[in-house]
Parts: sequence; C-alpha cells; structure tokens
Amino acid sequence: MNTADLGLPVDVPSTALFTDQYELTMLQAALKAGTAERRSVFEAFTRRLPEGRRYGVVAGTGRVLDAVENFRFDAGVLDFLCERNIVDEPTLEWLGDYRFRGDIWGYPEGEVYFPGSPILRVEGSFAECVLLETVILSILNHDSAIAAAASRMSAAAGERGLIEMGARRTHELAAVASSRAAYIGGFNSTSDLAAGFRYGIPTVGTSAHAFTLLHDNERDAFTAQVDSLGRGTTLLVDTYDVTEAVRLAVEIAGPELGAVRIDSGDLLLVAHRVRQQLDELGAARTKIVVTSDLDEYAIASLAAAPVDAYGVGTQLVTGSGHPTCSMVYKLVARAESADPGAPLVPVAKKSLGAKSSMGGRKWAARRVDEDGVAEAEVIGTGEVPAELAGRQLQVELVKGGEVLGREPLDVVRDRHAAARASLPLSATQLSRGEAVIPTEYV
Amino acid sequence: MNTADLGLPVDVPSTALFTDQYELTMLQAALKAGTAERRSVFEAFTRRLPEGRRYGVVAGTGRVLDAVENFRFDAGVLDFLCERNIVDEPTLEWLGDYRFRGDIWGYPEGEVYFPGSPILRVEGSFAECVLLETVILSILNHDSAIAAAASRMSAAAGERGLIEMGARRTHELAAVASSRAAYIGGFNSTSDLAAGFRYGIPTVGTSAHAFTLLHDNERDAFTAQVDSLGRGTTLLVDTYDVTEAVRLAVEIAGPELGAVRIDSGDLLLVAHRVRQQLDELGAARTKIVVTSDLDEYAIASLAAAPVDAYGVGTQLVTGSGHPTCSMVYKLVARAESADPGAPLVPVAKKSLGAKSSMGGRKWAARRVDEDGVAEAEVIGTGEVPAELAGRQLQVELVKGGEVLGREPLDVVRDRHAAARASLPLSATQLSRGEAVIPTEYV
Repeated sequence: MNTADLGLPVDVPSTALFTDQYELTMLQAALKAGTAERRSVFEAFTRRLPEGRRYGVVAGTGRVLDAVENFRFDAGVLDFLCERNIVDEPTLEWLGDYRFRGDIWGYPEGEVYFPGSPILRVEGSFAECVLLETVILSILNHDSAIAAAASRMSAAAGERGLIEMGARRTHELAAVASSRAAYIGGFNSTSDLAAGFRYGIPTVGTSAHAFTLLHDNERDAFTAQVDSLGRGTTLLVDTYDVTEAVRLAVEIAGPELGAVRIDSGDLLLVAHRVRQQLDELGAARTKIVVTSDLDEYAIASLAAAPVDAYGVGTQLVTGSGHPTCSMVYKLVARAESADPGAPLVPVAKKSLGAKSSMGGRKWAARRVDEDGVAEAEVIGTGEVPAELAGRQLQVELVKGGEVLGREPLDVVRDRHAAARASLPLSATQLSRGEAVIPTEYV
Repeated sequence: MNTADLGLPVDVPSTALFTDQYELTMLQAALKAGTAERRSVFEAFTRRLPEGRRYGVVAGTGRVLDAVENFRFDAGVLDFLCERNIVDEPTLEWLGDYRFRGDIWGYPEGEVYFPGSPILRVEGSFAECVLLETVILSILNHDSAIAAAASRMSAAAGERGLIEMGARRTHELAAVASSRAAYIGGFNSTSDLAAGFRYGIPTVGTSAHAFTLLHDNERDAFTAQVDSLGRGTTLLVDTYDVTEAVRLAVEIAGPELGAVRIDSGDLLLVAHRVRQQLDELGAARTKIVVTSDLDEYAIASLAAAPVDAYGVGTQLVTGSGHPTCSMVYKLVARAESADPGAPLVPVAKKSLGAKSSMGGRKWAARRVDEDGVAEAEVIGTGEVPAELAGRQLQVELVKGGEVLGREPLDVVRDRHAAARASLPLSATQLSRGEAVIPTEYV
C-alpha cells in the first residue's frame, strides 16, 4: 500500500487498528455462522443536533476516503491480533486479504445536515462494512464538531479574518484535522504548520510574549522582529503597557507596520484605544488582531470594535461546547441470505429508550421554497418523489472500492458557504434554538 | 531518525511540524538579533483547574518525551518551509541540525497537580526550547484532560471494571492517546485495538446491535456468537426485548455465560431486573456490563445497582465537560546575554487581565500533615526549605537531550492511584468545589 502521496506529516501505514475490538469478533462469529457475506447497508447519521444548534456541518468525508483506502491488515497488525488471541485463524486469513470493495454514498463534504440526515451510506457485505464503523465515526464525529463551531464563528466574523490557533489545546493530530475542518467552516488561515504541510492551508504567525521577554526590553524585541521579518510583521503589544508598546511599534516599524496583536484585557475597549492611537500616529493601515479565549459570542460582541482579524484557539478545537457529534453507524438493511441476489430487508433496533432508528436504505433531499431557501430535509426509503429528484443530497464517493469523491479543500469550503447561505436567515443566529429546518420522513 | 521502535500504528517520522508558525519566525528573529542562544527556562503550568474540579492529573509526559526525541526537521519539512517562505536560509540551516540538547524536569506522569504546579520545566537555549511549545502543550493539554475525567470516573466506580469505549467519539489518534490517559486514570481496558497495539493496554469487545440485526432472529445471533467466541462472551441483550433476550442468552450459553450488556433504558432499573432474572436462571456468575452515555455522575448513581462493569465513551474522551486543560508554556527566566556563563534573570508578562504569572525557575513540593495527607502545594523560586527537601515533586526527564524518564504505563497508573489516595478525602467528591489543597508561593 502506498500512502506516500497523502503527504502526511505523519505517515499512516494502515488505519485498520482504529477499530473497536468487537468489530473483529463480530466478523469472526459471522464468518463461522455463514452470515458474513450477507449484503448490508450501514448509514451514519445523528439523531439530534447538539443542544441549541440550528444546523450541522458535514466534515471529514475526505479523510474518511483516505482511511477506507488505507484500511489494510499488514503482517505486523495480524501478528498482534494473533498473539493477543483476538480472532481465530480463519478470521486472520480473511483480514489479510481485506480491502473494501463496496460502495459509499454520502452528503458531499461541507454540506449542512440535520437530525436524521443520512450523511454516509456504506454498502457491501456485512463483513467488509462492519469493520469500518469506528474509523468512520471517529473522523466524522470529530471533524464535523469542529467545522460546526468554525461555521458559527465565521458567520459571526462576517468579512473579517479568522485565524485558527488551537493546536496547543488539542491532541497534536486532532489539531491538524481541526485546522482542516476550520478552513471548511470558513476560517482563512492556521498557525499549525502541519496543517499547512498536509492540506495546503495558508499559515500565519505573529509573536509570543516569550520573544519580548527574551530581550532586554521591548524596543530590542520589536527591533529584532522588524529587522528580521520586515515591517509587515505583526507585533504583540500587551507584554507590558499597551499604549507605550503601540507607540514604540510605530516608531520602529513606521506606518507600514502590518498589524498589532492584543492578547489580554477588555478587547473591545483596548481595540478602540489602539485604533485611535494607530490612526493618530499615521498608521491608519496597520491592522489589529485580537486573540484570548475567543468564541463565536465574543467575536460577535466585537463586531462594533475596530478589529481586523480574530485568532481563535481553545473554543474552536473543542467545538465551542460540543467537542463531538453524536453520529452513529447503523445497519439499516441486509440481505435475507448470503446469496448475491437475495433481496434486502430493512432492519432497526427496537429500543427501550430514545435510541430507535428508521430501517431501510434512505435517500435525502432538501426542499426549497420559491426563493430557493431551504424549507425541509426530506428523507425516505421508497421512490424519490419527482419534484425532489433534482434536489437529492447524496453523491457517489466510492464505487466497488474505488474512491471517486476526492476534491480540493477550497471546493468544500465554497460548498459550505453556499449551503449555509441557502438556509433560512435564522440559521446563523447565535442564540440557542431548534434545527432551522424540520426533518420530514416520507 | 528511527521511530520504528515506538511501535505506533501510525509512524511518526517527525513531530517538528506540530508547531505554530510563530515559533519558527521568533527563532529567525532571535538568530538574527543574537539572542537565540540565551539560556532560557520555560515552564508548563495551569493558572486554574477546570471549573469545579478539585485536582488535575498529569498525563502525556511519556508522549512528550517521544515527541521531543523525534522533533527533527528532515528534507521534506525543510523544503516545505523554504517553498512557503516561512523562514530564511540561515534559519533553515539551523533547523536542519536541530535536536533538543537541553534538560527537562517535571512532575512524574500520573501525579496530581494544582493551579500553578510547574508540571514541566524545559531548559536550554531560547532557540531550542521555544520550538517545543506547541507539541508539548498539545500533548499535556489533551492527555491530562482525559486522565482527569478518567480519574473521577474510576473513583466513582470503586472496585468495578471500567472499559474505555470512546474511540468513535474523538479523532482517531486522539482516541489512542485517550485510551492511554484513561488507563493512567484508573480504567482497566479499552475497546480500541490501536491502543492495545501501541501501549499494550488490555483490549475487550462485546457485540453491537448490527450483529443481532444481521441474523434472522436473536436466537441465531446469540448462537453464532457463542459458537464462535465461547460461553464466556458478552451478549448484547437490548436489541428487542431485554427479558426475552436474557432468557435466550442463558438458554444458549448456559450459566457459564460471561456477561450481558445493556446499552439503553433506565440502567438502574434494568440492571436490577436483569440481575434477578440471571440469578433465577442459575446464572449467578454472569456479569452485567452497562454502557450508554455514562459519565462519573451516572457511574456514581449506579453504585447501588448490580453492575459489574461500565463501558464509557463520549464523556471520557471529551474530558467530561472539560476537553482541554489550560496549560501554558511560559518563559520564566533567561540569561542576561548569550554568554554561556551569564546569570539567569526571572521574567514575567505584566498583563492587563488575569494572565500574569510568576517569574523565575520554580521548585515544587507537596506538604503533608502528620497522617501523610496532602496539605498544600508549595511552590518557590529560592532555596527549598529543609523540611520540604524530601517532598519535591519534579524529577529529571531529559538530560542534555537524552531521555531518562521513560517508564512502563503500569507504574504511571499505580502512581496516580497512590497520589490520589494521598489527597484529602474530599478530592474525589463529584460535586463542584475548589482545588482540594491550596497552592502556596514561598
């Protein structure tokens, strides 16, 4: 298997162990029972949006495609499964030959979703589909959570710049996926070099308090930075006294100074003061970047402040209160027998609590009103009504094991902006509410 | 660089790009200014615990040591930095030769911590230390958040088993680190095969609803599972009707049935009923495993229920409300000049808000009362008082670039149990409160 062209800072020789043990033991039992080859349909969806959220954002699909392609059991992995007695010899043999040869349909990445939206549909034998559960959910649950937070923040920021700076607040590789999801959600750039390396996302950097403190005084620090990085650099002005630092910054860099960053204090107040001081010093084009535990509410509250860009960390990479989605991966239909021509039977758990779900392979379409504004998420298992045929949401992503659905990240990012723009206006209200359009089952 | 012996399911050729861009641009400016070689001391610490939490858990230290050792700029990385014009030629040359040659001291992994505890101290030239900021914080902030949640859950679970099942709810590699952190915090096993592979954590598995639904009826499914996996297996009994499923499970597997899993409904009520039914069927030794959005509060509320083990997912891997810690990495002292013999000067930001911190290289010790119960976290910059000399918390982890501090995960897990046991009893109360011991600065 060749993953070199994925260009990862971390090489992923195989994704096959990003798997819960029960998937392999279920496989073993089904192989022995002769049910493993029954044609099956699994769907990934959420039963609800995070509390108060009005829409979800599909993100991670591109990473899912990479993961499916690289889901192979090599010798080292098989040795581990054997030594630990996790599965028996026939199962190990089956796994050694494994590659996914089925079909995957799904919402294109960047689309919005609602409760019940069949975001991903995986079809093939039970055996080949059941193994993918954990890795698919890991990716979709993480990336969609971050993209949803990013989308709310970018709606709040309007035309102003958004810099993803959260790497230090989350797992080092979750950080790379977070940068990618943030970009989809509308962020402009990232501080994370691995995200620039892996996904080509524009990277930016300013300066830390440590740099100022390293030097004998702020003048030496600013001079060192401007000498090396040029007048277009961003100087951090809140290590000691902001007013003095801004004065010094313009004295050293001149009115061509790129930007100043403020990382503490009452940002609304300080931004106004700094803007006025910069203007008085003739640095009218010097920008103001603010950071410091921002979330979508803080961004919105700074709308009236003279801020040019927001750097967001913690709240972005933790999904702004919702660090995961509640996507599940459920068997919704399977063949009556292992016979390749056997008809599919819809199946569903009959649960004690609120966990029941609708059986059967689903289509999904978004109905719009006469102005083209989304009106309902329509989901069904039968024939697609003629008036919705052109509004279907699922696209073919994998066919017979071959990945068809790869696309550039900018296409995904643009799709999200368009999808969000097609929702009713209240979608981007920050206040808590219900899903902005209802889900209708037909 | 040889990382093969890390045994990762994902090979990490280099951790050098898990870095925010400003670390490299600060390096460039400091190299040009002649300040890059000033001897520097950075410390990682938190200003506060997550709201309501009574102690923190140090986790990730072992992963930090791996990351520091593998922090190298190879040709592919240097090409990227060059093409993107991120740093200049002299800086690229410097990076090509980079390896960390300084010293790291820190709290041993598994220890508890409090506001201000200097969890990690990194000493060396400014240049070599500043580069490590992001990767160190990513690891400590993530892993410590998960370990803290795990520790609360394991305190609530008492002697009962805890299974980590959260892989599907978080980034696929964050999941592996989460399993490791959960094990440190007191979990017994994981469903995540990658965590078993990488860290040797015991792995377990049960069965999913999909397996039951794949078969023509529950009888076929249970028979298939028991035939293949033996009577000691865990059968999932809530796909249709729990009472009927439990009857069927014991009919098929006999009283040697290992366990049943309940994943929905009122777990307290259902567990009581299932226990009674199992006992009446003669399956007195068959265990009950419960899952379904558990957190430490749900675990505690089930203390009176006949539950043998808890499977925990979402709330564990999202830190049970606190998915990240607020650890920062601050320059606290640096030499007056680049001269190797130059004395260290304590430094600290003079902040507008609450972000100020104490300058100077710190020691830390935990004072105990006459019964050996922790009484205060004592932190200072001067001489260590004689009565605390034997109670110092920091240990040597890296010396002159050589990693000294690696240890088996079971040692770390035992250390955490001992450290938690040495805190006042109220440490493990689940209700919100203040840090269970005060931090004193001397």
